[in-house]
Amino acid sequence: MEKYLIEQPWKIVEEGFDKTKNRFSESIFSLGNGFMGLRGNFEENYSGDKMNGTYLAGVYYPDKTRVGWWKNGYPEYFAKVLNSTNWLGIEIKVDGDTLDLNDCEIKEFKRELDMKCGILYRTFIVVMPNKKEIKVNASRFVSMERNELGVISYEISILNGDGKVTVTPYLDGNVHNEDSNYDEYFWVHEGENSINDRSFVNLKTKKTEFYTNTGMSFHIYMDDSPLELPRENNQKGGFISQTVESEVKQNQSLKVVKYVSCVTSRDHEITDLTKVSNKNLEEAEKSGYTILENEHKNRWEHIWETSDVQIEGSESAQQAIRFNIFNMMQTYTGVDSRLNIGPKGFTGEKYGGSTYWDTEAYCIPFYLSTSAEDISKNLLIYRYKQLDKAIENAEKLGFTGGAALFPMVTMNGEECHNEWEITFEEIHRNGAILYGIYTYIQKTMDKDYLAQYGLEVLIAVSRFWAQRVNYSNEKKQYVMLGVTGPNEYENNVNNNWYTNKIAQWSLKYTLESIKWVKNNHKNRYQEIISKINFTSDEVKKFTEVANNMYFPEKDGIFLQQDGFLDKDIVNVDDLKPEDRPINQNWSWDRILRSSCIKQADVLQGMYFFEDQFTTEEHLKNFKFYEPLTVHESSLSPCVHGILASKLGLADKAYEMYLRTARLDLDNYNNDTEDGCHITSMAGTWMSIVHGFGGLRYKEGEMFLSPTIPNAWDSYNFKIIDKNSPISVHVNKKHVTIDAELERDIFINNKKYTIGPKEVLKVNL
Amino acid sequence: MEKYLIEQPWKIVEEGFDKTKNRFSESIFSLGNGFMGLRGNFEENYSGDKMNGTYLAGVYYPDKTRVGWWKNGYPEYFAKVLNSTNWLGIEIKVDGDTLDLNDCEIKEFKRELDMKCGILYRTFIVVMPNKKEIKVNASRFVSMERNELGVISYEISILNGDGKVTVTPYLDGNVHNEDSNYDEYFWVHEGENSINDRSFVNLKTKKTEFYTNTGMSFHIYMDDSPLELPRENNQKGGFISQTVESEVKQNQSLKVVKYVSCVTSRDHEITDLTKVSNKNLEEAEKSGYTILENEHKNRWEHIWETSDVQIEGSESAQQAIRFNIFNMMQTYTGVDSRLNIGPKGFTGEKYGGSTYWDTEAYCIPFYLSTSAEDISKNLLIYRYKQLDKAIENAEKLGFTGGAALFPMVTMNGEECHNEWEITFEEIHRNGAILYGIYTYIQKTMDKDYLAQYGLEVLIAVSRFWAQRVNYSNEKKQYVMLGVTGPNEYENNVNNNWYTNKIAQWSLKYTLESIKWVKNNHKNRYQEIISKINFTSDEVKKFTEVANNMYFPEKDGIFLQQDGFLDKDIVNVDDLKPEDRPINQNWSWDRILRSSCIKQADVLQGMYFFEDQFTTEEHLKNFKFYEPLTVHESSLSPCVHGILASKLGLADKAYEMYLRTARLDLDNYNNDTEDGCHITSMAGTWMSIVHGFGGLRYKEGEMFLSPTIPNAWDSYNFKIIDKNSPISVHVNKKHVTIDAELERDIFINNKKYTIGPKEVLKVNL
Repeated sequence: MEKYLIEQPWKIVEEGFDKTKNRFSESIFSLGNGFMGLRGNFEENYSGDKMNGTYLAGVYYPDKTRVGWWKNGYPEYFAKVLNSTNWLGIEIKVDGDTLDLNDCEIKEFKRELDMKCGILYRTFIVVMPNKKEIKVNASRFVSMERNELGVISYEISILNGDGKVTVTPYLDGNVHNEDSNYDEYFWVHEGENSINDRSFVNLKTKKTEFYTNTGMSFHIYMDDSPLELPRENNQKGGFISQTVESEVKQNQSLKVVKYVSCVTSRDHEITDLTKVSNKNLEEAEKSGYTILENEHKNRWEHIWETSDVQIEGSESAQQAIRFNIFNMMQTYTGVDSRLNIGPKGFTGEKYGGSTYWDTEAYCIPFYLSTSAEDISKNLLIYRYKQLDKAIENAEKLGFTGGAALFPMVTMNGEECHNEWEITFEEIHRNGAILYGIYTYIQKTMDKDYLAQYGLEVLIAVSRFWAQRVNYSNEKKQYVMLGVTGPNEYENNVNNNWYTNKIAQWSLKYTLESIKWVKNNHKNRYQEIISKINFTSDEVKKFTEVANNMYFPEKDGIFLQQDGFLDKDIVNVDDLKPEDRPINQNWSWDRILRSSCIKQADVLQGMYFFEDQFTTEEHLKNFKFYEPLTVHESSLSPCVHGILASKLGLADKAYEMYLRTARLDLDNYNNDTEDGCHITSMAGTWMSIVHGFGGLRYKEGEMFLSPTIPNAWDSYNFKIIDKNSPISVHVNKKHVTIDAELERDIFINNKKYTIGPKEVLKVNL
Repeated sequence: MEKYLIEQPWKIVEEGFDKTKNRFSESIFSLGNGFMGLRGNFEENYSGDKMNGTYLAGVYYPDKTRVGWWKNGYPEYFAKVLNSTNWLGIEIKVDGDTLDLNDCEIKEFKRELDMKCGILYRTFIVVMPNKKEIKVNASRFVSMERNELGVISYEISILNGDGKVTVTPYLDGNVHNEDSNYDEYFWVHEGENSINDRSFVNLKTKKTEFYTNTGMSFHIYMDDSPLELPRENNQKGGFISQTVESEVKQNQSLKVVKYVSCVTSRDHEITDLTKVSNKNLEEAEKSGYTILENEHKNRWEHIWETSDVQIEGSESAQQAIRFNIFNMMQTYTGVDSRLNIGPKGFTGEKYGGSTYWDTEAYCIPFYLSTSAEDISKNLLIYRYKQLDKAIENAEKLGFTGGAALFPMVTMNGEECHNEWEITFEEIHRNGAILYGIYTYIQKTMDKDYLAQYGLEVLIAVSRFWAQRVNYSNEKKQYVMLGVTGPNEYENNVNNNWYTNKIAQWSLKYTLESIKWVKNNHKNRYQEIISKINFTSDEVKKFTEVANNMYFPEKDGIFLQQDGFLDKDIVNVDDLKPEDRPINQNWSWDRILRSSCIKQADVLQGMYFFEDQFTTEEHLKNFKFYEPLTVHESSLSPCVHGILASKLGLADKAYEMYLRTARLDLDNYNNDTEDGCHITSMAGTWMSIVHGFGGLRYKEGEMFLSPTIPNAWDSYNFKIIDKNSPISVHVNKKHVTIDAELERDIFINNKKYTIGPKEVLKVNL
């Protein structure tokens, strides 16, 4: 871990260019708008180490799974997030020499992401091998207002004389994924074409047959005045470009404004793609850079109004939390219920798939408090729409009668991960899907969601649990064999406490919800049970299993799994420093049999179901498990941070916060070059708002129990609650609440009522 | 399973040609001589479904491992058995049309393997598309006398007229492995050349850089008289051929005798390869087909003299046991201690590697009783030579101080398998390595082997066990976490009874052997302990662990692992027929949590250490586990058969025998097309000799306790014992022993002494 970037409250700044950190910076300086995005690559050619990445949400390729010996029930493919047509490129020549920062003397270099408005700026002064000293000012954004639009402004001056500048904006469909399992090329070229001065590249994915059209047009300006130049067109095999050339006098500036449209067959008829792209470009040209930029800025201003967290006392923490929120918001905007929150968002291609249990466990709480209700609801509906596939998935594993197993990794509802050892038996995710519904309803009180969509999902998942357990004649209880819990440093264990817990809770919540729907939506209830052939025998079975579930426990410690106490129990602090992180230094074999825990497991369960346990139980288990936890999952510290806050362990909570908040900015796990850890960013937000803020929702009511770390003076966060943003400001002495509408709020379990547009100040 | 081949005591016969079974037949009709071998492919072109396979023992390629996410300690490569230069090929044209059985009308077709002499015959009469009716008589063998020599005789006549026959013997180095992980080509062409009328192809493997030279020469005969014809040479990119052409009158026969030499840099200097090959061919030509054939036949006659098992009462059983013995003997001859017994021998390319624990657990007992002692000793020395690599292997997993973990799959001592789920944690193999030494000494009383080689291996393996266990504060005993037992339908379990057992036994046997070497080879002992830094603390630790090992047990059942009784225990007979075999019909997930056992696990341990248990214990555990066992490993039925014989369960023993003996001949597992199950063939032999014969060795003494299945009248087997073959004939009433030298023998635990060249007959 090292500090490389400059800390500013609203900006991420890289000053000076370190070639060895270029992939890292490309990840950090990624931009997106929920529909498309790209890494912080350079417009001009760059021959140094880089990973070009341009992504389109929901466009994927089913890469053949890479396993030693494929067995029944294994996923047939790994859904790869696709690197798609590179639309960023602008080749620059000065007096015939190509600009390439890899062979220039760099005099000044600055990359700057302005998170307040979602714009990436880059300026540099370099001396080219031909001795021309060049200055470039570039800026880009992926429009939050127009989903299919990217805009680039690229301005070049020669500082030490006159010269001939050649500018070649291009689109390049000759892209590949670095993580292709078999080094396959995933795209088929479907031709290039031009309409007026607009150029288009058409590609189609193999197998999945997503058609994409990427279009570009551009305007040239000399010292900000439009300049018409003859264009030389070039096109070949997925590549298309237009070249213009101009004499530029010393200190004149030649600027190109490039408009890009990306459209796909996900949203349009295949035959219409070029037409739609052409229209997008036409409209963008009409608006011009400034209007487009303003629209985009306004969107971001609007987003921050309800989602900003302000921290006084630490610029580093302030920058970090905004970086996390910024990335959540540019990865998923919630307007398309077919999309979800991929683990790398638009910042890299690793891991594949777009949906993990992270969505329900981490992201839904974030969106519930920062965005309109329907954003979270769309994430729930996403799963509802994939229920049939989840039932098929369970059938492939031998389950019957409408039992559903939602996938660990998916793009379209099918299971699509790449490995057995960790992922396959993590069936606990099935419970998280239901917990997402529960979380949503606790916050919104939209119980009708159960009747509308929720109950079918609940019953299907509970059917799975009821079949997945078996009755142990030995224990005279129901057991669950052969699972992997959230702690992926154990595999194929019996009676993982967390999994048994969330299975039991799933069954109970399903039984409650059945009652509620039956009582409140009689007709709909009949419709559902007849559609899915649900019987009263199943109610009995659910009840029987829920009431007789086995949980490993000893002396008040909930055991992670059967046999956990047979291990050689070693505190993480007693490991040799050179062994850390263990996943880079120990054999997998050794990790599995060690007592080291990757991420919250029993504690994850206690966090989800906190009301079921006393503070003493919380404390005892926290003190047992936290010292055994290496936090080598990006999802771990946040949960521990929240629990530590709750237990009043402010220092521990702050330590955990630091591990999660600057994970990518300080490259904590030394893997940010692959892309940012998007879903864990929601966890970071949780560790502030649910952790330090102590925010909980129960039955639609809002509870706050703040704990402020010593390092901070105070912090503010705004929350969308029943469609009314309220602002919470906490410091070591007070909570101050600013509400738009009249409402109740519980502060340290005491109820207060605030009038509309009133401010409430409560001493702590 | 279906009967396709004709049953004869000494022959495997296929009559008529079924294209859909061609790959199966190619496997069955494979030939080898321990150094090289080939599948039963056709000499002439064949455009139908086939898998060409020509293999050279010890020549392999390190194919990049195919795993989803590579983790520390995973093997970096999977050692592939290589398909090498195809030397069988003889292209035939008649009146310009190429002979290809895929487009002929087939009037007669017969493939016949004569196991007595190791020769494959093929005759067929076909009508070619050009209406020429052709008769072919072909025979081939891989010389048991000359390791590097293959010989083919191919005779063709035209039955319905005269014609021009064109014969093109060739060598083709353009071969690939069907099971290449990434569809890579493993060979580099190193050029072709000719000396006189001999042609050579030189290849080199990528990475491992094995150089091979394959040479051919041939003679042509018309009606058995030598015929000199002009030869047209052709060579290009790894391919070389010579074409001759002759008018053949109706009912004349044109014969080509092709000699092939295969030499590699494993045995010769790279620069000498062509020279050696040329000499091999020169000598073969001088001898001619008949002399070469006779040498080869004599060798086989000699092999059968000491290894034949004769069964009266069942031709099917008779053929099957000979097929098993034949394949063992042609796979491994024991003259090269760098070689071992690959799972497919020379019959296919699947699984890779050449050495599994099968060698020690199954093959050593076979060779000990059928071949000279040094054959088995070479198999032990093979592991001794790889001890350093086994120590490195353990170091990669985090073990220290000279602890050794022998690989699960290897070619050169390095671990080189392809998957995690099953293979990786099967550390029990480490015990089998020691059990091989123990078996060898029990039979030969060559205890000096311990001083010479054995003790170093014993201590290194025991060091591994002493580190691999940990002390459980919960159980107050040593436990072994995270292992996979022989039953590969469980993965990553705790306290697998078999593994704990063989670990405990390893430690005890090591301690005993330390004492013996210390007392009997004082100087050598000092040399060893100083070489490996062995201390008395380690003796203490070994003793402590061996005396305090935990074993899961309940009511006299030794539990396969912790928690086994939590499973839903279901007898295999109660499964639906359509679920069998479960590995083709159930998800891996379901298999793992089921109570189904793939192969003997607890019972394997009881078989190895039978003296530690009462007959009651044997019976109780057999009756518990056998009904749970699906026998989906080819190694399973034989162990159950032996135990059943011992327990007097003759019918069960016979049922088990039938499952193992004709596994490949009747294609029981529907996968013989990939190659034959070579190592399990030793198990088949064991189920007869150790099972029905009840043969045991204890401290050099021979014990027999026969049980003859009802279906058989009697059987004979010959055993090499202290270098003197004795012949044992058992029927339902008598044991008859025919000994060359004076010796003692225990029949049903009663001691008998037989004079030299005497026959002893004992009533049962």
